[in-house]
Amino acid sequence: MKTTPPAPRDMSASRDRIADETDLIQTYLAPLTRGDPGAFGLRDDAALLTPEPDTDLVFTSDPIIASVHFFSADSPADIAWKALAVNASDLAAKGARPIAYMLNLALPERPDREWMRAFVEGLRVAQESFGCHLIGGDTDMTPGPLTIGVTIIGAAPRGKFVRRQGAASGDHVFVTGTLGDSALGLRIHSDPSAFADLSAEERNFLVRRYLRPQPRLGLAETLRIHASAALDVSDGLLKDLARLAGPLGLTLDFGRIPLSKAASAALMRDATVVQTILGGGDDYELLVAVSQGKIASFSREAELAGIEVCDLGVLREALPLQVLDDHGTPIEVWQFGYDHFSR
Amino acid sequence: MKTTPPAPRDMSASRDRIADETDLIQTYLAPLTRGDPGAFGLRDDAALLTPEPDTDLVFTSDPIIASVHFFSADSPADIAWKALAVNASDLAAKGARPIAYMLNLALPERPDREWMRAFVEGLRVAQESFGCHLIGGDTDMTPGPLTIGVTIIGAAPRGKFVRRQGAASGDHVFVTGTLGDSALGLRIHSDPSAFADLSAEERNFLVRRYLRPQPRLGLAETLRIHASAALDVSDGLLKDLARLAGPLGLTLDFGRIPLSKAASAALMRDATVVQTILGGGDDYELLVAVSQGKIASFSREAELAGIEVCDLGVLREALPLQVLDDHGTPIEVWQFGYDHFSR
Repeated sequence: MKTTPPAPRDMSASRDRIADETDLIQTYLAPLTRGDPGAFGLRDDAALLTPEPDTDLVFTSDPIIASVHFFSADSPADIAWKALAVNASDLAAKGARPIAYMLNLALPERPDREWMRAFVEGLRVAQESFGCHLIGGDTDMTPGPLTIGVTIIGAAPRGKFVRRQGAASGDHVFVTGTLGDSALGLRIHSDPSAFADLSAEERNFLVRRYLRPQPRLGLAETLRIHASAALDVSDGLLKDLARLAGPLGLTLDFGRIPLSKAASAALMRDATVVQTILGGGDDYELLVAVSQGKIASFSREAELAGIEVCDLGVLREALPLQVLDDHGTPIEVWQFGYDHFSR
Repeated sequence: MKTTPPAPRDMSASRDRIADETDLIQTYLAPLTRGDPGAFGLRDDAALLTPEPDTDLVFTSDPIIASVHFFSADSPADIAWKALAVNASDLAAKGARPIAYMLNLALPERPDREWMRAFVEGLRVAQESFGCHLIGGDTDMTPGPLTIGVTIIGAAPRGKFVRRQGAASGDHVFVTGTLGDSALGLRIHSDPSAFADLSAEERNFLVRRYLRPQPRLGLAETLRIHASAALDVSDGLLKDLARLAGPLGLTLDFGRIPLSKAASAALMRDATVVQTILGGGDDYELLVAVSQGKIASFSREAELAGIEVCDLGVLREALPLQVLDDHGTPIEVWQFGYDHFSR
């Protein structure tokens, strides 16, 4: 017995809803365990994992909440992808590979079968792409918004975890992929009139970058060998760059920031896009500090992995973290990344 | 950047609120890591755990949601205790000991400092009691209710995990402590006029059993040696008994169910308390299947651990799961335990 089960919100008889918790778990979620004996077919109270020898385990847990991190009306497959991808991205930044995950589903209503089928199919595609599977978790009805809590478990060779803090003066900071796409995609996704003069292809590209972040797992092994420090860009380039730099500083020429064709086109039309690129989050690209002597090898390995990396500049002591425009003038930053709790 | 940060609900200037996410994490949560180097002072994207040799890791994750599993107005220390206790209880049932936990806090408003201090102090007391500490997690603002998601990590000697399924015909089913107290406590906690003619002491005892479940961690080692199967009673005695029994059955004399003095007093005043005892959840006592040959040793070990256990009866093939009253008449069960999703 629980305190007060919230009333299901939409009980229209026309929709084919799951019958009960057992139906939800056994019909939809249990197949995601891929037969791992440690998941016990999701019929036990806990999951079991036998660690491989000489391995460290790496844990991260980033729930996504409807109307905070995604929209309820987003496709279930997109929601599922994002729920797993944002967690896998953290593992990639730590040089770890995903093994398994726990899933906590808090649902505002009994889901209909079509939604669950699509959601589970989205999870299946994501977990196969990232190389992990479901081992346990929990389902609840909530009076609040749909919340998908993933705790992912990764593995790295003993002692090879890549820390966020560990960059040294003289290290170069590399970033993967392109920045700002996701924050621009969010603007278009939430307001179809935004950037209306971009091409349909460009707009779709940006929205897709928002909906479908790509964890850079292909770089995890390379990071373990070459990175003095790394993290993923989730709260905005400058905020995450400051985290990587710690007490060090960096002078970043705005022109060095790798932009997609679509983001460049948006920037040409709207100068405030500079702020979106510097402060917008959800990029899930990696920021990597690499010492001078390892740069050539790191760049080669990244190329072999098929992941573009771009040198943003050199970390220095007694230097501020600042961004310069084409004329060498510091750019004033409006919002220093996302913070849930500050105003 | 996230889709839409929800507006904080109560911003009355009179309350001293946390400043931002860094304040929340570093001032309040980081001390709960107890200096574990793998937690990186909650300053990294992930937590690191180096498994001990010959150990299996055990994971379980049960979030608690305000107005579903607890009341927003409950004391922060009680909420904190429950959030960790319900997870530690699952580990106890699996014969595992808690090592560490991930904490996902979804807050409907910027918490005030007094609430956070009390909440963190409650977590500190709970984690010391259960022998674990915080290693990571996440904080979010949510447009929904306060939600505390704990994923707990336990350890058990390799191959010694106690499964839910594994009971054999002829096994006796033992239960720890007393049953029904928590469900009765919930009734009193949510309606102060309920069971008004019980003594203040009895009423307080029952409410406390609801607010402060005691994971039976002292029995974990004994379970590994003696139990053919086990689980904790979270969704109601009969529902969890059915899970333990699997295809087997059991005839349970209602009179054998261990009741506290307070629950007995409630039952004497209200015959429907029978249903609360059979179907009410949140007991967090353990149901343990023990083969005939191990009963004496199990009972001795439980006594040494200071945990009362009571023999509910024998599992048999081709037998239904039924409860008999004093006259040997089957008791009709109104609600077969709690299900979030069925109506």
